[in-house]
Amino acid sequence: MPTFVDILEYIGTFAFAISGIRLACQKDFDVFGAYVVGLATAIGGGTIRDLLLDTTPFWMLKSSYLIWSGIALIFVYLFRRHLIRLNNTFFIFDTIGLALFTVVGIEKTMNMEDCNYPFWTAIIMGTITGAAGGVIRDIFLNEIPLIFRKEIYALACIIGGITYYISQALFDNLVITQIASSASIIITRIVAVKYKIGLPHIKREDN
Amino acid sequence: MPTFVDILEYIGTFAFAISGIRLACQKDFDVFGAYVVGLATAIGGGTIRDLLLDTTPFWMLKSSYLIWSGIALIFVYLFRRHLIRLNNTFFIFDTIGLALFTVVGIEKTMNMEDCNYPFWTAIIMGTITGAAGGVIRDIFLNEIPLIFRKEIYALACIIGGITYYISQALFDNLVITQIASSASIIITRIVAVKYKIGLPHIKREDN
Amino acid sequence: MPTFVDILEYIGTFAFAISGIRLACQKDFDVFGAYVVGLATAIGGGTIRDLLLDTTPFWMLKSSYLIWSGIALIFVYLFRRHLIRLNNTFFIFDTIGLALFTVVGIEKTMNMEDCNYPFWTAIIMGTITGAAGGVIRDIFLNEIPLIFRKEIYALACIIGGITYYISQALFDNLVITQIASSASIIITRIVAVKYKIGLPHIKREDN
Repeated sequence: MPTFVDILEYIGTFAFAISGIRLACQKDFDVFGAYVVGLATAIGGGTIRDLLLDTTPFWMLKSSYLIWSGIALIFVYLFRRHLIRLNNTFFIFDTIGLALFTVVGIEKTMNMEDCNYPFWTAIIMGTITGAAGGVIRDIFLNEIPLIFRKEIYALACIIGGITYYISQALFDNLVITQIASSASIIITRIVAVKYKIGLPHIKREDN
Repeated sequence: MPTFVDILEYIGTFAFAISGIRLACQKDFDVFGAYVVGLATAIGGGTIRDLLLDTTPFWMLKSSYLIWSGIALIFVYLFRRHLIRLNNTFFIFDTIGLALFTVVGIEKTMNMEDCNYPFWTAIIMGTITGAAGGVIRDIFLNEIPLIFRKEIYALACIIGGITYYISQALFDNLVITQIASSASIIITRIVAVKYKIGLPHIKREDN
Repeated sequence: MPTFVDILEYIGTFAFAISGIRLACQKDFDVFGAYVVGLATAIGGGTIRDLLLDTTPFWMLKSSYLIWSGIALIFVYLFRRHLIRLNNTFFIFDTIGLALFTVVGIEKTMNMEDCNYPFWTAIIMGTITGAAGGVIRDIFLNEIPLIFRKEIYALACIIGGITYYISQALFDNLVITQIASSASIIITRIVAVKYKIGLPHIKREDN
């Protein structure tokens, strides 16, 4: 039986894969290409994290992530005419995925036995887990990575990481900390999108 | 003395490097850039495989791959006016390389001592060995990876991997399995190119 | 107290980060995106080296690299109207960084205890340490990597690596070898830029 966290992780995988598959189809990738882009969006961040932590990439021993990416492909095919109406639902799923992936990345880093990483490294690993899949997706699509130009996305992961650190120091309770960290990511992301809050840009030199 | 498999591997390296070098020259890369792109095409897939398997990248202890990529560079320079006529020959070499790299990737994964990977992971590692070098090449060239849009390429590796699994289960004979797997890749690729068989695309949402 | 080599390394990190941040700002990245591109330019090469060598990426246990990339971001913001006038200064810093990163990469490879790498592998690792960050930067910017098309850059690292090998064989003195190797990189780079020396291109096939 999958646990509650497993179910959240599958929701995140599904939502991340859908974002990759949809963009790939818009660029006229074939179904195989779309599947690879969806899969890379879903598992790319965690794979980079695991390579940096020198541990076996999480998807190499458990097939759920490949299967859920495949379900996402079938879903996009079946509902291709109705996906735009579901954009808000996908946004919620994607944000849940972002929050959960970040917390998973932080905890995996802190639980590595070989090496005592400082907490800021854990925050970076959480951010990579949540946000690097989207960077790989955009490189495959031959686009400038979206998270470098628009919206608050990776910054939400960093805020979630700092919240994790503070909450754990204050309450020393894992469940409270996980909820506080996830909530801070979800709220940051929703507020940023709703009120169109973005980060400033440094003006070009030639202006 | 190089073995028969060594010779096939050098042919594959040479053919993969040539595909990278030719495309780089078309984009006006200098000879160093062309060499790096050719080398990355030839060794990129195996390097990603070895990073994922947490083993020393194969080319770091054996200089043949760098040397064959260098020979490919000289070859492209000398025969630059005659390469188009050799396209069919390169296609055969490239397909042999694809088949061999895939089989090598599968077997290296199954022979890892630290970790018992499921067979589907071995198929993915075989496919990465065969096809990921071309993805890196296209990223360096700032193009959308060709294998995501056109032709059956990576899918041939997956078919080869499934053939490997079935053949090994039926005959339990390594040589028969290697030949069956390679042959299935080569035949799939030749049939797909000859009859222009491609994978379907999911229509855009806005149509 | 930071050592002399530490200080050179911080200068290199600062200069590499500035090159990434400036180009990112020109492409209208937000401050977070600019910081990530600057950081990736500064630490990307060493990270790939450490993944290939199967050792913990150098920046995961020491925060200086992240901090110096942050200082570079603030610097670019404060002096955004005056940066063009500083181009020559940045060029010197960047070249010092290139030389130092290459030497660090060579020595880290030769000092790996688990594995006896041949010296040509150390030269490649030195070149990756010095030059791969710029390749990642250009991929993030969705540009063809500059070092594949223009100027002598990575080749200077290779010349520095060969100089390292010859000097160590002749003098067997670490300090002399480090100085000789760095100097050969800096001189190659300065001469190449001053006299606009580039590598030849192989003419296109269709000409």
